[in-house]
Amino acid sequence: MGKIEVICVGTELLFDRINRNVNFISNSLAKIGLSISRSITVPDEKEEIKESLEESFSRADIIFLTGGLGPTFDDITREAVSEFLGRKLVFSEKIWEEIREKFIRRGIEPPEINKRQSYIIEGAKILKNEVGTAPGMIVEEKGKIIILLPGPPSELIPMMEKDVTEYLKKKIKTGKIEIYRFCFIGVPESVVEEKSKEIISSYGIEFSIIPHSLIIEMIARLYKPEDVEKIWKLEKEFEKIFGKDFIGVNPPPLPQLVGILLKERRLKLALAESCTGGLVGKMITDIPGSSEYFQGCFVTYSNILKKRILRVPRTVLKKYGAVSEECAILMAKGARKYGKADIGLSITGIAGPTGGSEEKPVGLVWMALAFPKGKVFTKKNLFTGTREQIREKAAITSLDFLRRKLTEENG
Amino acid sequence: MGKIEVICVGTELLFDRINRNVNFISNSLAKIGLSISRSITVPDEKEEIKESLEESFSRADIIFLTGGLGPTFDDITREAVSEFLGRKLVFSEKIWEEIREKFIRRGIEPPEINKRQSYIIEGAKILKNEVGTAPGMIVEEKGKIIILLPGPPSELIPMMEKDVTEYLKKKIKTGKIEIYRFCFIGVPESVVEEKSKEIISSYGIEFSIIPHSLIIEMIARLYKPEDVEKIWKLEKEFEKIFGKDFIGVNPPPLPQLVGILLKERRLKLALAESCTGGLVGKMITDIPGSSEYFQGCFVTYSNILKKRILRVPRTVLKKYGAVSEECAILMAKGARKYGKADIGLSITGIAGPTGGSEEKPVGLVWMALAFPKGKVFTKKNLFTGTREQIREKAAITSLDFLRRKLTEENG
Repeated sequence: MGKIEVICVGTELLFDRINRNVNFISNSLAKIGLSISRSITVPDEKEEIKESLEESFSRADIIFLTGGLGPTFDDITREAVSEFLGRKLVFSEKIWEEIREKFIRRGIEPPEINKRQSYIIEGAKILKNEVGTAPGMIVEEKGKIIILLPGPPSELIPMMEKDVTEYLKKKIKTGKIEIYRFCFIGVPESVVEEKSKEIISSYGIEFSIIPHSLIIEMIARLYKPEDVEKIWKLEKEFEKIFGKDFIGVNPPPLPQLVGILLKERRLKLALAESCTGGLVGKMITDIPGSSEYFQGCFVTYSNILKKRILRVPRTVLKKYGAVSEECAILMAKGARKYGKADIGLSITGIAGPTGGSEEKPVGLVWMALAFPKGKVFTKKNLFTGTREQIREKAAITSLDFLRRKLTEENG
Repeated sequence: MGKIEVICVGTELLFDRINRNVNFISNSLAKIGLSISRSITVPDEKEEIKESLEESFSRADIIFLTGGLGPTFDDITREAVSEFLGRKLVFSEKIWEEIREKFIRRGIEPPEINKRQSYIIEGAKILKNEVGTAPGMIVEEKGKIIILLPGPPSELIPMMEKDVTEYLKKKIKTGKIEIYRFCFIGVPESVVEEKSKEIISSYGIEFSIIPHSLIIEMIARLYKPEDVEKIWKLEKEFEKIFGKDFIGVNPPPLPQLVGILLKERRLKLALAESCTGGLVGKMITDIPGSSEYFQGCFVTYSNILKKRILRVPRTVLKKYGAVSEECAILMAKGARKYGKADIGLSITGIAGPTGGSEEKPVGLVWMALAFPKGKVFTKKNLFTGTREQIREKAAITSLDFLRRKLTEENG
């Protein structure tokens, strides 16, 4: 199993997508037991690319290059690699024909400059681009592998997911490292570590901790498959120590986990969102097949819709305000009733940056759950951070609130 | 103006957040005319960090290190920098007190391991962490600047945004590079370039092109402020050539742009989303103050809510299906009416991966706009990509559809 490095070609203006790409490559490799040892971003200048390639070639066995395969003047990865390897760029009539067809299908005259994308490094294996025009390439040289992928994530992702992964699986005999994710929510990183430190070390498993904005992941790497028994024992211990703050081992993402719990219990969910503006609905419907348990969502951003659609009485809004336990309960009940669901979940709060007061500061978020038989639960939160962070934390916390109550009430 | 490099400390499992961080640092620096020349990710091993720091120190004048400031055993950036510089780590009673207070406020006994975060590199300027516990640091050495920032984006972002930017602004006399973004939507990258190539070169302005999933950005760097006249002339030319496909120069993000157009026209918007599940509502409410023009959204994911809430007749759903021009129109009209709005926007489609048919493939998305006086517009789309990509493209396209109609109809 050789070292892997990634060279991302692009200016600093492209960091957003470069990051998505490296992230995706890293996750795909993890699934076949491989990992990136180094990633670097270099400007799209030929000499810079060649220099980085030389360095990586001396250290690593597999080198990814992303970006710089476009049709325009500043796309020069093809040329840099061809010069570094001393291999010619060869025009492929077939690829040019495929590119032309893509434009014609969209009703656009194929631009001449896209012809550049039909040039292939001599001897390269071609990776078909189903989304855009630039084909990817795999070149083998002196027992090492160079993989060129297009920069737009929408093009790189399917290529990496299918062709590159399959190619590497065949090429590389991977060591059988297995990764297990222990996930926690509602406790700080340091508490997770302090409470688990001794137990972990008694099991002799290596862990690294990754704190996300609310979820803490402890990653265990198993080098011997027979050690998997330890994982299941640890799972039991953590359940005892952390209770519902421990989500589980390798759990699916929270929206999917909630979906599984709802499906198992044959319950349908409807939402009433205010400050999150549709984010919770979006997260739930990220999951294919969510229509089985998700009826829909009322984004009652204005008070008039809270009154007219969810039937929150004017008097409640006047007396307690839209961000209150009382309003949250009525919103959840309204979502349940008008959303034709078994469970209504509501979120109402102040995401900021303005709109806060001493009594109700920015970050105050009320959530409520309306269960069958009139059962109601509420939760008050005080989140910190930017508007975006507060909204994200509110959305995740509301799903976690539902997870806890589903496993308590119907477990 | 010196070179800037970023060293990200973390394993490949952290790439997601590393990318967000580099991206944010890059964008913050761009605002004060600075740019990153190189970024590298290194594993959290002391020798690796020291080696990278040595390399960067020989090339760059400002070096950022992100991550590895946490409380746990694998957080060793502090130690690596202190050893590289030959400066001691000094315990700060004041910082330990602040960390303790943060835990106590949350009702948690301060864990002893967090004490590590109270150690400061001798002579460093402290950057207060408003969100988490690890303080950032700025160290000046031999006329160069080393900046240590915590890994979690929620902590790094506010620190970078305020203290670091202000510090650098004072320290560095920036060259006056000005960046102008020319934004296009609805045309492929190569068409943008081909149609604009000659005009651009006649103006003698350097451009780089960044294609996003639907929006194409052309970035111009102006080195002389007096050249700004050229930008406004180019803007006029592009308006002529590209029409509404040209969004403008330095436009705000699409949801904000749509918000400005609605506010100017004193129009209120309501949505009916199906396949996007709340994503458009989320995007609109990303913008602070959106309550001025946004009433709310009906996420009628199930057909029963399309019938009961938006009053789409059963016969229409039966005859044409939920993904049809007819249903889209009735959803938009329902959103307008029941959402107490001037404009209703609807989106209904098949996001996949399953649920498609020959007649209605995955990626088919209908959208409709209901304007005052019974005016209705519709748009049929066929998007490619994953479920996530189709949903994102549908959301952006629906906002662009509204932008085009607002500027046509009320311009």
